[in-house]
Amino acid sequence: MTTGPSTPYLAVDPNRLRDNLRRAAEWAATNGVALRPHAKTHKTAEIARLQLDHGAVGLCVATVGEAEVMAEHGVTDLFVAYPLHLDEPRTARLRALAERCRAAIGVDSVEAATRAGRLLGPYAVDVLVEVDSGQHRTGCLPGEAGAVAAAAAAARARVRGVFTFPGHSYDPDRTASAAADEGRALAAARAAVEGEGLEVAVVSGGSTPSFAHTDVGVLTEARPGVYVFGDAQQWELGAMALESIALTCRATVVSHAGGRAVLDSGSKALAADRAAYSTGAGRLLDHPDARVVQLSEHHAVVDFAGAPLPPVGEQVAVVPNHCCAAVNLADELWVEEDGELRSWAVAARGRNS
Amino acid sequence: MTTGPSTPYLAVDPNRLRDNLRRAAEWAATNGVALRPHAKTHKTAEIARLQLDHGAVGLCVATVGEAEVMAEHGVTDLFVAYPLHLDEPRTARLRALAERCRAAIGVDSVEAATRAGRLLGPYAVDVLVEVDSGQHRTGCLPGEAGAVAAAAAAARARVRGVFTFPGHSYDPDRTASAAADEGRALAAARAAVEGEGLEVAVVSGGSTPSFAHTDVGVLTEARPGVYVFGDAQQWELGAMALESIALTCRATVVSHAGGRAVLDSGSKALAADRAAYSTGAGRLLDHPDARVVQLSEHHAVVDFAGAPLPPVGEQVAVVPNHCCAAVNLADELWVEEDGELRSWAVAARGRNS
Repeated sequence: MTTGPSTPYLAVDPNRLRDNLRRAAEWAATNGVALRPHAKTHKTAEIARLQLDHGAVGLCVATVGEAEVMAEHGVTDLFVAYPLHLDEPRTARLRALAERCRAAIGVDSVEAATRAGRLLGPYAVDVLVEVDSGQHRTGCLPGEAGAVAAAAAAARARVRGVFTFPGHSYDPDRTASAAADEGRALAAARAAVEGEGLEVAVVSGGSTPSFAHTDVGVLTEARPGVYVFGDAQQWELGAMALESIALTCRATVVSHAGGRAVLDSGSKALAADRAAYSTGAGRLLDHPDARVVQLSEHHAVVDFAGAPLPPVGEQVAVVPNHCCAAVNLADELWVEEDGELRSWAVAARGRNS
Repeated sequence: MTTGPSTPYLAVDPNRLRDNLRRAAEWAATNGVALRPHAKTHKTAEIARLQLDHGAVGLCVATVGEAEVMAEHGVTDLFVAYPLHLDEPRTARLRALAERCRAAIGVDSVEAATRAGRLLGPYAVDVLVEVDSGQHRTGCLPGEAGAVAAAAAAARARVRGVFTFPGHSYDPDRTASAAADEGRALAAARAAVEGEGLEVAVVSGGSTPSFAHTDVGVLTEARPGVYVFGDAQQWELGAMALESIALTCRATVVSHAGGRAVLDSGSKALAADRAAYSTGAGRLLDHPDARVVQLSEHHAVVDFAGAPLPPVGEQVAVVPNHCCAAVNLADELWVEEDGELRSWAVAARGRNS
């Protein structure tokens, strides 16, 4: 192995990354669903390019800042899948974005839809109506989508369609049922918008855990994010195999205090995300029985379940619970290929507004 | 209020910040304890300067990278309170650091102590022996501190003293008892080191929740971090009053979906830290009854407990659960004073190695 930077740092396995991209592209082609991957997961120009090379129709982002970075790197079709509040600066930035690429945003109320049409200028930025399919975060009820779309159209915004994020798929008992909820909610929303005499070009959904269960009879577009890397959450949900995990945090064993191995990959490198179903604060790629049982800012305490501890000074590969959160802490991702180590800038890191 | 940057962003109340610094300085002077604040909390040159202006004897950091940044900004006395593993690059960086300032590191085993003396050069970098006072993370047992110190001395490292972090003070039932544990462990460690015929110049401890209970008969130095800002954890532990919280995340209400207010300050702005005792994923400064009941990367769903929701578009001030983690996500802190808004760079952000 080539000598990398000082630990902790994030490493990408490029073969696994490409396999993940290929598998998603095949799924999309087989099922006639367009792929619009979520760039919030990787925030890098290099992976955005790979996604487009693998047939993505465009990218999805969470913030105007992420969209700006992706546009600077040549992405020409961007959907901010978020019910943005259009204050003056954000409106100006979106108008500028729309001048250099095909842009869309989410709206989830009549007021927001009216505002979008009025502030962004006629037909400058498309809108998609966000519906709540069961996560109960943002989004209107499916039956309300018609009124929201009509308000947008009345304010001279082009309505592209409807979207949802079935985030309740991150409950291990609901990965399949969340996909069914998603299909039902989007079908109802589509009908509601068409009932207003408006065309629905795009019906967009998708989350990595529910991906395999997607109702391809309803969705025309999927927006998975995590599928590029995988993480301990996907592994523990059974949504991705250990062998597909393409992102790890390289860490050094710094202590054997208390008979456990302590790593230098704390929550400032791995992030503190821990779902109710998580078995710890992270996993180890080469030690599937080990668990990160205690996490502080610069310490991950690992219980090796009776197995011999790796010696102090040894490097190990930690699988973060949530890859999007870990990437958001790093300035670069390190990629080793053909014995060469190069870095990809996490170009949109910190672009949260 | 002056118009700030687009939300979400971190805002510092400079009056509260100065009050917090002043209170800690008074406590230190009254009790004859030296103050060596932990810069991992703020990672900014400006607050480091204010801490030194308020009588701090030097700063404490968690990584060599943080030490390098603080040294670049003129801090001349830095203790990396961490049991670093000295690989080649880190050793070289530490030696370079020691040429420009008074430097110390932690060691928590005979092997690490020997290695530190041997690799860093005779008496170039001081060592402090880390002892476990009950958090069970890193640190040797108090009774082992003598052997660790003797190994360091034999390898020609100057032993400055002993230290601990009573992190179990972050359990609401143990804030006071953790301070008692800390005092006992440090007294035993001091005796063990002195038993080897070595002088103990510094006995260092401290955590923000246990601060008020510190055994000032034992400690010669305290290393609190969070006290500069406070956060929802300190507020809920009763360690700091709401009126002392100096750091908030300014967020915009983007939706009223489901009868709750959804803010644009998700875990990529607030961080996902959530202790067992936390009542939510963050609090609102001006709405003490409200709770962040659901947190995803760009959404904080707030339950206002029946109170009227702030209108969509309104800005609110969110108190992160853990200020160190929130600061680690931001490139700058925004400070409003005398009607002027200026930013302080989070200069050591991302310097995790």
